[in-house]
Amino acid sequence: MIKNNSKDNPLSSNKTDVKRIYFDWAASAPLIDMDIKTPYGNPSSHHSEGKAARNAIEEARERCAAVLKVPPETLYFTSGGTESNSIALFSNLMKAGSGRILSSMTEHASIREGIETLEKIGKPTGKIAVDSAGRVTPITLEKAFDKYDDTRFISIMSVNNETGAVTDTASLNNVIRNKKGAPVHFHCDMVQAAGKIPIDIQGWEIDSASISAHKIGGPRGIGLLYLRKPLEVFYSGGGQERGIRGGTENIFGAIALANCLEQTTAEKYYLQAETRWNKLMSALLKIDRCALIPKERTALDFPTPDTPHPSPQFSPYILQAAFNDVPGEVMARALDDLGFAVSTGSACSTSSPERPVLAAMGVEEKLRIEGIRISQGYSTTDDDIDQLICAITEILKFL
Amino acid sequence: MIKNNSKDNPLSSNKTDVKRIYFDWAASAPLIDMDIKTPYGNPSSHHSEGKAARNAIEEARERCAAVLKVPPETLYFTSGGTESNSIALFSNLMKAGSGRILSSMTEHASIREGIETLEKIGKPTGKIAVDSAGRVTPITLEKAFDKYDDTRFISIMSVNNETGAVTDTASLNNVIRNKKGAPVHFHCDMVQAAGKIPIDIQGWEIDSASISAHKIGGPRGIGLLYLRKPLEVFYSGGGQERGIRGGTENIFGAIALANCLEQTTAEKYYLQAETRWNKLMSALLKIDRCALIPKERTALDFPTPDTPHPSPQFSPYILQAAFNDVPGEVMARALDDLGFAVSTGSACSTSSPERPVLAAMGVEEKLRIEGIRISQGYSTTDDDIDQLICAITEILKFL
Repeated sequence: MIKNNSKDNPLSSNKTDVKRIYFDWAASAPLIDMDIKTPYGNPSSHHSEGKAARNAIEEARERCAAVLKVPPETLYFTSGGTESNSIALFSNLMKAGSGRILSSMTEHASIREGIETLEKIGKPTGKIAVDSAGRVTPITLEKAFDKYDDTRFISIMSVNNETGAVTDTASLNNVIRNKKGAPVHFHCDMVQAAGKIPIDIQGWEIDSASISAHKIGGPRGIGLLYLRKPLEVFYSGGGQERGIRGGTENIFGAIALANCLEQTTAEKYYLQAETRWNKLMSALLKIDRCALIPKERTALDFPTPDTPHPSPQFSPYILQAAFNDVPGEVMARALDDLGFAVSTGSACSTSSPERPVLAAMGVEEKLRIEGIRISQGYSTTDDDIDQLICAITEILKFL
Repeated sequence: MIKNNSKDNPLSSNKTDVKRIYFDWAASAPLIDMDIKTPYGNPSSHHSEGKAARNAIEEARERCAAVLKVPPETLYFTSGGTESNSIALFSNLMKAGSGRILSSMTEHASIREGIETLEKIGKPTGKIAVDSAGRVTPITLEKAFDKYDDTRFISIMSVNNETGAVTDTASLNNVIRNKKGAPVHFHCDMVQAAGKIPIDIQGWEIDSASISAHKIGGPRGIGLLYLRKPLEVFYSGGGQERGIRGGTENIFGAIALANCLEQTTAEKYYLQAETRWNKLMSALLKIDRCALIPKERTALDFPTPDTPHPSPQFSPYILQAAFNDVPGEVMARALDDLGFAVSTGSACSTSSPERPVLAAMGVEEKLRIEGIRISQGYSTTDDDIDQLICAITEILKFL
């Protein structure tokens, strides 16, 4: 953390004295303090220790289900968002000739990579375009269906991990359900949505969804797969999680995830996040050299805390911004030197400087290179925002 | 725990007063006490938090490598033994026409299920027989190679999870390396071996091996895959772990696994385990109605603590025993009522009462039905063994 109102060149400040302010929550969130006691038995065992373990994991499942407003039997614990995505994707291998798999052009690497794997072994695939705000819309989805009438599985993320763009899932549902021909399975990567913005898994008639704990203050290595109906999966290991996900159940992780979902979806966090994000965007747009990405992002995306919030167009947890003539990597490094963690693209795509998500939205190359991602979480404060703005302003004096 | 020297019918003791003694460590071990501080950054991020996270996971990898005596770059963190097995197995999908996959007839469900998955999508497979002690031997392996000369991948576990039978891996290595024709990939499920018995991954020239933390006192949801050389994997998600295993790295788990490997492989635990197991086996064999499975198991499988131990034929952590005219399920339930957790077969195969592992060894049906698995761990005591023997003796008076 830099001293406020510093007159010195902030780029030469002494690194060892720097306190840290974290603005990379979309990559991974600091752990919420929890004191969890877990039984040590294996839930598949028949003795008392096994039964205690079984009860513990089923109780965690019920708590997650209550927050997500879905039946407990539709939730399966996995090792995280990546595995949840892969279980859903690879179920396509088990339905011979079931048809084409489509995905939006802005999916996370774990979906992109899975689709490429399926392509390699002969599955037909295709892409769904996004609009300039980075969203699949009823129009782009209909166009994709027109082009690929053999589509049987689509994967469209809820919240983009680089821009915060929120898919209007309810509007897509009409297109999916009205499509002629064989039914289409609708998979939704909700890793940046669950526990952050209002979601309605059942109302939107999603067939499968992925959720990760470590994006909302839980430990690494635990996530959820929602399945409206059980799937025939590619590999079920020891048959745990009712044959959907093999491996001894991670009870500690399951309880921690339930804790996180209960805490982070609390309305107050969401409203606070909206308010802080309005403040950040207003301040950034006062900086001449700053542009928000996409340009559809405005300084007041969110209502004030006193009014009920509508469906957001963007997540109040993620923001992509560019600073004229400063490459994103340079800005990120300068901020890091001053004690602020921000990123350029996705942590899972740091080897892809091309920024394919921004390219798919039609963002020009210069802006793509200049873009940085700022993301907040439950413990971000107004003061953190002030200090970030101050640091960016100081950096721009020297770059 | 029952009161020692109880004169009452132990089957009618008051359950709510019962202390517990755990003899199901092969299913899952109680957590070793650890106080672990983990950085919250994402190791793929470039900022200070990311670098701290990267350093933490690489340090954990180096510590695991030091214990396992392998280069750190051959170790990849996974979500556990099941996933480690599946990554190795499904790499077969990426080498078109690479040939047949063989597995021993006593593999864990996570391997069995993986092989069945590969069969379903057209991969040729085959079985390697075991001898009456439950081990693949140079002779049974050569027979399998003679039968299937297109073999390119074999999966043979180090220690059987139901009987404790230890594969003489060094002797198999000669057969594998001397096989004519294309080289064979040797995968080894070491989940019941690593951290429990002496292993020599490099010396045995294993190509890939699976290790799980929760069998040796670590948390659920973390394991290791050893790869002598990098593999082309079926799915690499976000590309973490150098493209071998996708998903944000579980740093807490990695450090915990390093802690466990360092602690549990300590010579003293192993020697203590041998001594206690000799004691248990001696006591059981004094019970007329008790038979050890397989019959090759003797009361003194292990040397005394004062003499250096040779390669064990059976693991001193797992024992399969049968009690004449008492079905294993009845004995397990009776022991559970008295405060002891034992199991029948594998926790991961509780829906398979057929005991396929014992059947593959030629164990007669009556004994298969009567078999129970007793397994110990680092905190098992001589007194626990005494109490277990006492409880079994009491139960047999009434059954």
